[in-house]
Amino acid sequence: MRLVTYRHTIEDAARLGVIQGDDIVDVQRFGASQGIELPASMLAFIDLGPSAVRRLQALLDAVAGNWLPGTSVPGTNVQLLAPIPRPRKNIFGIGLNYVEHVAESSRTLDTSKDLPKEPVIFSKPPTTVIGPGEPIRHNAKITQQMDWEVELAAIIGRRAVAVTPEQALSYVFGYSVMIDISARDCRRAGQWIYSKGQDTYGPFGPCIVTADEIPDPQNLDLWLTVNGEVKQSSNTRHMLFKVNELVADISAGITLEPGDIIATGTPEGVGAGRSPQEWLHPGDTVVAHVAQIGELTHPVIAV
Amino acid sequence: MRLVTYRHTIEDAARLGVIQGDDIVDVQRFGASQGIELPASMLAFIDLGPSAVRRLQALLDAVAGNWLPGTSVPGTNVQLLAPIPRPRKNIFGIGLNYVEHVAESSRTLDTSKDLPKEPVIFSKPPTTVIGPGEPIRHNAKITQQMDWEVELAAIIGRRAVAVTPEQALSYVFGYSVMIDISARDCRRAGQWIYSKGQDTYGPFGPCIVTADEIPDPQNLDLWLTVNGEVKQSSNTRHMLFKVNELVADISAGITLEPGDIIATGTPEGVGAGRSPQEWLHPGDTVVAHVAQIGELTHPVIAV
Repeated sequence: MRLVTYRHTIEDAARLGVIQGDDIVDVQRFGASQGIELPASMLAFIDLGPSAVRRLQALLDAVAGNWLPGTSVPGTNVQLLAPIPRPRKNIFGIGLNYVEHVAESSRTLDTSKDLPKEPVIFSKPPTTVIGPGEPIRHNAKITQQMDWEVELAAIIGRRAVAVTPEQALSYVFGYSVMIDISARDCRRAGQWIYSKGQDTYGPFGPCIVTADEIPDPQNLDLWLTVNGEVKQSSNTRHMLFKVNELVADISAGITLEPGDIIATGTPEGVGAGRSPQEWLHPGDTVVAHVAQIGELTHPVIAV
Repeated sequence: MRLVTYRHTIEDAARLGVIQGDDIVDVQRFGASQGIELPASMLAFIDLGPSAVRRLQALLDAVAGNWLPGTSVPGTNVQLLAPIPRPRKNIFGIGLNYVEHVAESSRTLDTSKDLPKEPVIFSKPPTTVIGPGEPIRHNAKITQQMDWEVELAAIIGRRAVAVTPEQALSYVFGYSVMIDISARDCRRAGQWIYSKGQDTYGPFGPCIVTADEIPDPQNLDLWLTVNGEVKQSSNTRHMLFKVNELVADISAGITLEPGDIIATGTPEGVGAGRSPQEWLHPGDTVVAHVAQIGELTHPVIAV
């Protein structure tokens, strides 16, 4: 199931939808047409727990495309927002989680050439999040080294405390795409939040694909282009710590909650690792793609 | 004005109160007794904007202690919770923000001996927050180096984008106390979130003192004891980056929002900086105090 947060007109509130062919079915209105109360937001839907996905799918199957008027809109007629427009806490980011990216980072950033023995965790505030197509804001007063990072994002579905790697994937609600925009010249005493945490530095979407459709998150191609030129191209199988290991590791000390987002790290090919180094500038267009999920396209603008 | 979040019995929901002598006046019920709608939670009150504090104070002054029955409770009869039990995003923490603490950290941790040129920012998830008296959980499977840090916390009152240091204090709603519990052996490739972000690592309270009562946040004594022995004792005047500079600096790149919390850093005297080093263990009691605000007392327990 492909879930989106959308609005029909600019005045509308954000609503939860499920993609069905070329249409977006409004989950709350569809539920009401079936006499069933369903929520209007992604977080409220995730809060219902894992059975909600199965129940919604069964309802959709039963109707088999015969939506009542007013419960669906053509997908071309809506604006997609970030699937979770406002996370309830900072996004968990994972650094140095692809082998080749560890190597390129150690050449040009201040990181070690050794592979990390444990996941390297940082965070991005909820104010970083922007939806598909929204501009990434380039503030030349703050950074001259804005960089790109395509990542698979895992969204937590239920409260996870000290779960084992074997159990961990059952705590994942679904998957999405995040671009972890990073101002390399804004690292401070080794801390990355100012580098990765500025407004608009978290393009997120276009949808959440529920975990039942991606039983193996470690076999997804992912790539990123800048102005049409491929900069990153890899596969999630090259992750150092797999999604289940990340969930298990974080949950050992930090309770994970429904709606939490883990951006699972980026493969090689970032601007900082190139020779000569390359950075994003106003006027650039960044496209990020993760197989089976979808694509984000974002202009960079000056502010 | 001293604002608290409290509950009368364990079954009650958390409610917003204001301390008046030995009593806690329930803000919503008091407002209702005066025919005025006021919120029942700290975040909703902060969201009303800076004028709400002045209006509530005027109402309290007009009644002059003659509360209607049911609008106040004796302070001894309630449980205080963290003033904001559930922040809307990670707490902003500031590292290495007192001169002597920079020196002690460079001797024993992996930090530079040079004073930082810009604030060193990290974050603590909302799940770190515990209220006055709640136990700090010591998980020996994860850490053998649990440390203390007493800090002045500043709570943001209104949306701040690129504010100047001169304007910045007008964006502060009030002040509180936070203990930035830190597992020194959980730092990872320089990132501190796992070290400082585990469950119960953010004791917070006991109240928020509104900013009108603390016009100068840079002249507050603060101290911390472990089992009655003074470990830290300093004054906020020794901060490297003052509260107004922190607000201005963060807001240049990261929009600050009502209810955001900035833990402004700790003075010298942490366990890691001692010779020999000292750590917190189950059975210890930590007391943290900031003048004009109040005191937090927390047991450390094994889990």
